[in-house]
Amino acid sequence: MARLLRGMCALGARELGLGAEPRCCRSFSSGGWEPPGSPGSLGRAESRRRRAGLAWAAGAAAVLAGLGLAQRAEMARRQSQPREEAEAGGEDELARRCERFMAAPVSGLGALRSRRGEMRSRMELLIMETQGQVCRALAELDRGASFTVDRWERKEGGGGISCVLQNGEIFEKAGVNVSVVFGHLSEEAAQQMRSRGKMLKAKDGKLPFCAMGVSSVIHPKNPYVPTIHFNYRYFEIEEADGSKQWWFGGGTDLTPTYLNEEDAVHFHKTLKEACDQHNPELYPKFKKWCDDYFYIKHRGERRGVGGIFFDDLDSPSKEEVFQFVQSCAKAILPCYIPIVKKHCHDTFTPEEKLWQQIRRGRYVEFNLVYDRGTKFGLATPGSRIESILMSLPLTARWEYMHSPPANSREAKILEVLRQPKDWVH
Amino acid sequence: MARLLRGMCALGARELGLGAEPRCCRSFSSGGWEPPGSPGSLGRAESRRRRAGLAWAAGAAAVLAGLGLAQRAEMARRQSQPREEAEAGGEDELARRCERFMAAPVSGLGALRSRRGEMRSRMELLIMETQGQVCRALAELDRGASFTVDRWERKEGGGGISCVLQNGEIFEKAGVNVSVVFGHLSEEAAQQMRSRGKMLKAKDGKLPFCAMGVSSVIHPKNPYVPTIHFNYRYFEIEEADGSKQWWFGGGTDLTPTYLNEEDAVHFHKTLKEACDQHNPELYPKFKKWCDDYFYIKHRGERRGVGGIFFDDLDSPSKEEVFQFVQSCAKAILPCYIPIVKKHCHDTFTPEEKLWQQIRRGRYVEFNLVYDRGTKFGLATPGSRIESILMSLPLTARWEYMHSPPANSREAKILEVLRQPKDWVH
Repeated sequence: MARLLRGMCALGARELGLGAEPRCCRSFSSGGWEPPGSPGSLGRAESRRRRAGLAWAAGAAAVLAGLGLAQRAEMARRQSQPREEAEAGGEDELARRCERFMAAPVSGLGALRSRRGEMRSRMELLIMETQGQVCRALAELDRGASFTVDRWERKEGGGGISCVLQNGEIFEKAGVNVSVVFGHLSEEAAQQMRSRGKMLKAKDGKLPFCAMGVSSVIHPKNPYVPTIHFNYRYFEIEEADGSKQWWFGGGTDLTPTYLNEEDAVHFHKTLKEACDQHNPELYPKFKKWCDDYFYIKHRGERRGVGGIFFDDLDSPSKEEVFQFVQSCAKAILPCYIPIVKKHCHDTFTPEEKLWQQIRRGRYVEFNLVYDRGTKFGLATPGSRIESILMSLPLTARWEYMHSPPANSREAKILEVLRQPKDWVH
Repeated sequence: MARLLRGMCALGARELGLGAEPRCCRSFSSGGWEPPGSPGSLGRAESRRRRAGLAWAAGAAAVLAGLGLAQRAEMARRQSQPREEAEAGGEDELARRCERFMAAPVSGLGALRSRRGEMRSRMELLIMETQGQVCRALAELDRGASFTVDRWERKEGGGGISCVLQNGEIFEKAGVNVSVVFGHLSEEAAQQMRSRGKMLKAKDGKLPFCAMGVSSVIHPKNPYVPTIHFNYRYFEIEEADGSKQWWFGGGTDLTPTYLNEEDAVHFHKTLKEACDQHNPELYPKFKKWCDDYFYIKHRGERRGVGGIFFDDLDSPSKEEVFQFVQSCAKAILPCYIPIVKKHCHDTFTPEEKLWQQIRRGRYVEFNLVYDRGTKFGLATPGSRIESILMSLPLTARWEYMHSPPANSREAKILEVLRQPKDWVH
């Protein structure tokens, strides 16, 4: 089966024709599932700061999605098509836009057409587009590699598309996952949301919901190329009176093995610019939230040098938050790709690779012990485990009492992980 | 610091003079901390079957112990001394018995002498003895390796001794940890025990407790040598009227990369014989408890081929349970060492090593996601993280959608992990 899968990877590559694809430029991207830890929002959502659980449930939506059967995706042929034109245009433009995705949209073209103006359709297009753009950009950089594309369905409604590149020249393991799920909230999930402050009035005991997101973790081989993680997600619940509660969540963060201050500044600066287009208060708030969330408590370390993180974002308006999320998604490639290009051919020693492996161990610790999306997914019967755990690195290491020498480069990054810095002012 | 530690390892080896030590024969051994999952006991403890939390707290005792400063242990010289004589004998015998330990007993020789007949002293000697015997047996097999011995203290009372061998010829990573902690139960811990059925009457709001255990995980290099885990522990709480609640917990279980039925039968048979000396009902009950506890729910797999697991054992009498625990501890080396010797020079391919690494990934998943002792330890501020996480393998691997071909040897062990077998009847 492992061999079979590898075969399928090669097939995926051929179908995608990724090597021949023109460079994926800084078109936008967006993404998936990850829970909150401390809050923040665009404005009046400030008052909902403490709805962590509900935000978490939202974050876990894409994980929830991981139910059902994995199927081989039929890859659509792609054509060059500027996004703006596609968004503004008619049915042909929509179809052309979909052709650039890694697989047909989860909801199907017909459903997306019939509710074109609705946020759930616009967000689904955004996350599908992000997945396609990120996958193409990575495959273009890593010419020896290709993505496995798995389409899976959720019995209760919806499904997802998992794209994974493994053991490439540049990327050790890169996963970009989309999920779009809908149905009725389980009593447990509804209780959980209520217990955390969400007022939910069920109709005949039922709460229809729709949750979607794109999430990704990219682990490169070279210890001088950092790991990136991003996710952007949207949650909608219909109440008894037909009104809808909705919110967005997401973030992008960087995990280097060695500190390169220039890279950290570039990364944060790009995110800050994306945030500042909407409100200058957002970046500092979401930067701090990110530092707080990606905290490996038992180590007293952050997972990486941070980035932005937010959840439960439901103000000032659905349109404004969507525009903000879209800007964040657009920033993913310009945040990261220049750093990959800069370092992917850096030489490194076995000792440097070893330090990377130890840091990967910490990555595993965070994801399995603290990440609420992962924990929720693992605890949900019938979840698609492989989509949840594709965030784990290919390899990791735990050495008893490992502690780098004072003033070493290994000690230098630990300092920053223990005491987060402000990278841009 | 990593280099420094390696230096210390070598020093430890010289101090121990392990290479020159005569074979550590099948003398007994015991061990540490691990929580329950489903219950069982010698007889009337049957009625307490559902006190999982309390049992868990007991299991986590050694983790609790992981507070304070790690210090270099001064290794005592060892002399050959039959255990029976030492246990029966006077002060000299006690001192000689202690000389075979990896470090001076946590409570100190004076304290052990002054309360020689008490269970806490007898159990401390048992766990220290077990640690010494297991470490010597491993070091004797792996002549190129040596144990780092760290002694650490807990501010509130007690401490521990962590022995770790890393990157040997035969063993990739082997940790044997002893902890002996005492003081007053935190309100949180007491509440937790009460909430799970334990009646605890505090004196002036205080509940003096004493908890101790030995725990060990041994990961060999060769994929044909299985990983073993064992732990044996004792918990005591003093109530307002001066009476004491007490219980024992423990277990030994095996995690092979490839199934060798003969080895599994040998392992289980040795454990069954140890149990049967006390009550023929014990092995079947504790075998099932082990299969239930070491369950990676999200994978639908057990961690390994099981063994025995029990907790909250407080009947028929303190003496009888201690004798049972002692028999289990004695069985550790005869359970495992013959399997190591049989396979440690087996040839293996890179593909077989890769499968081992994938199984190591599952080991990490179990320990970080499910193991209650680990989770409790990580959540306890000030825990000695390195002692808790020494159970993790040196290296591990996660491949997206890895699934072995049908009828392969990889698929064969998966079958047994998904559907546990009865190895002895």
